[in-house]
Amino acid sequence: MNNKVYFTPGPSELYPTVPQHMQEAMAQKIGSISHRSKQFQEIYASVESSVRELLQLPDEYEVFFVSSATEIWERAIQNNVRRESFHLVNGSFSKRFYETAKELGREAHAHEVPFGQGFDVASISVPETAELVALIQNETSSGACMPVGELNQFREKAPAEALIYVDAVSSLPYPAIDFAKVDAVYFSVQKCFGLPAGLGVWLVNDRCMAKAREMQDEGLSIGSYHTLPSLLDKALVSQTVETPNVLNIYLLGKVVQDMNQKGVDAIRKETEAKAEQIYTFLEGSSIFSPAVANPQHRSRTTIVANTTIPASEVNKLLAPFDMQVGSGYGKYKESQIRIANFPAHSPEQVESLIEKLKSISA
Amino acid sequence: MNNKVYFTPGPSELYPTVPQHMQEAMAQKIGSISHRSKQFQEIYASVESSVRELLQLPDEYEVFFVSSATEIWERAIQNNVRRESFHLVNGSFSKRFYETAKELGREAHAHEVPFGQGFDVASISVPETAELVALIQNETSSGACMPVGELNQFREKAPAEALIYVDAVSSLPYPAIDFAKVDAVYFSVQKCFGLPAGLGVWLVNDRCMAKAREMQDEGLSIGSYHTLPSLLDKALVSQTVETPNVLNIYLLGKVVQDMNQKGVDAIRKETEAKAEQIYTFLEGSSIFSPAVANPQHRSRTTIVANTTIPASEVNKLLAPFDMQVGSGYGKYKESQIRIANFPAHSPEQVESLIEKLKSISA
Repeated sequence: MNNKVYFTPGPSELYPTVPQHMQEAMAQKIGSISHRSKQFQEIYASVESSVRELLQLPDEYEVFFVSSATEIWERAIQNNVRRESFHLVNGSFSKRFYETAKELGREAHAHEVPFGQGFDVASISVPETAELVALIQNETSSGACMPVGELNQFREKAPAEALIYVDAVSSLPYPAIDFAKVDAVYFSVQKCFGLPAGLGVWLVNDRCMAKAREMQDEGLSIGSYHTLPSLLDKALVSQTVETPNVLNIYLLGKVVQDMNQKGVDAIRKETEAKAEQIYTFLEGSSIFSPAVANPQHRSRTTIVANTTIPASEVNKLLAPFDMQVGSGYGKYKESQIRIANFPAHSPEQVESLIEKLKSISA
Repeated sequence: MNNKVYFTPGPSELYPTVPQHMQEAMAQKIGSISHRSKQFQEIYASVESSVRELLQLPDEYEVFFVSSATEIWERAIQNNVRRESFHLVNGSFSKRFYETAKELGREAHAHEVPFGQGFDVASISVPETAELVALIQNETSSGACMPVGELNQFREKAPAEALIYVDAVSSLPYPAIDFAKVDAVYFSVQKCFGLPAGLGVWLVNDRCMAKAREMQDEGLSIGSYHTLPSLLDKALVSQTVETPNVLNIYLLGKVVQDMNQKGVDAIRKETEAKAEQIYTFLEGSSIFSPAVANPQHRSRTTIVANTTIPASEVNKLLAPFDMQVGSGYGKYKESQIRIANFPAHSPEQVESLIEKLKSISA
């Protein structure tokens, strides 16, 4: 039996109801049902409707299930960029999206600020030729975030035809995205949804769909099985193109129903309260300090701290208490820790973590 | 509680040990561990080694985990075909691989025989310009198979540089593939491995790796995160590029260990014995008959029968006995049934199914 509480930034602690939903899934033999059966279609339709409710998703958006957010980077470029994309970069994951565009032969431009910084949106000018503008709502590697108010400014800054993409991989459902101001938003289930990994969710509006169809009509290759039109064809009958991760789709539906029952507002308030406690501790600590200087740009869900004792040592000290935080990302592996503050982490668990981190500092 | 036994051709019945492995996975919190942790690396290394043992995979082969066999079709074309591929087509899935090549802008040629037929290998000539030869060891839609002896003839028939791909999605570990005679083999875990869907396994040799590197060096785009070189970079440290379906990788390792304990020879013999019983029944039935005429080309793992009563009716009659077979594929939905004969299906379950199908016919 493993009693550790995972504060790692995803995969992370499972949402508390997941073990019972998994038991029910096994009892109902969800792993055996056909992805072309009516039973699967009903599960799919129910998950989609729950996700729409939780995120207050407008009707012009589609909900597509793919294998990971990494896949979404590739599909986004293939389906929505003929020639040129523009990326805000302030960490490893926003950089990876930018590099993906280049690997796929596109002309990609980046507005890059140092790791761990937010953006001065007023100073950013989007090229007139940019077809896709990649915003990073929450940079999982550095703990920097873009408040929704900053995201919302890009519709006016960007060319009228440009599609605005929002990486909310490790923050949704926390940020109350204004879906009318953007065109696509995506997330991974192993972050704030507290599920095992293996599923990415891609929310795209009618403008993204239209662009993919235009490119296809022009004879451009937009991929094979996971083109936006193929995804839509199957989504319209509550199915996927390939045999998907049925079990995770089922579990996502159950967890989102639980979240709807709790209410997204309650989840958001609790996330903010826990984040405030963590940042207050970090600011008063002699060992840890918030890695993101500007409080406005500090993520509420993936909290990154500089540490004067190596991250591996921090985890060694936490181990006897059955707790684990994330190490820093890449070259910050030992000099930073990352603390996931997801809906799965209860206020009591967060308090307990803070207490133990305090005892380390003492 | 669902007590149905699924004879559907995948997703299908879970391998009998899966529920207990899943329980252990939840107790060990496998859904929470980082895909960059030492614990994950140990799981990965152990799965890879178990798969190598089960399939007697030569050292020049790599084992890559991706999201589905559908994804493998796309990655195969992107990584191993500059211009032209050649496909043996005798059903819906072999046709889909052929269409994938065209969707990705390649010149694809097909040698096509009617649905449900095997191939007359002697009469097939492979174009001198073919870079990839797609063989279909087991066509899940039609129940036609290619015996290993037929696969083995293509090394000599094909141009020396051509890469020979084998679709064994719904048959491995049953066929004793001669890996020296081919270059890549792939399967899905929700078929003969009796796992929940959401993982495809791609076995590729050094010739496939070299071709991908050549294409990359020439400046051709071979994709982004799932190029063969990227997959290898991470596989060498027992990791994946993206956050993968960790839970399924863990479960695959457990099931393959169980299979190794039973022994692949025992599994193959049991598969043959069960298949023989099913075909003997079909040949004597007044309602059902084997859909594949030539006994040499009849799949041992996905058995397809013509039925004079609609497939949906067959399943209605089986429902009170807690059993379900697959319906026919595509336009054969009602005129054929498909019976999965996977390692998860015990001889007793197969006997029981035959008995019930007999009672329907009576």
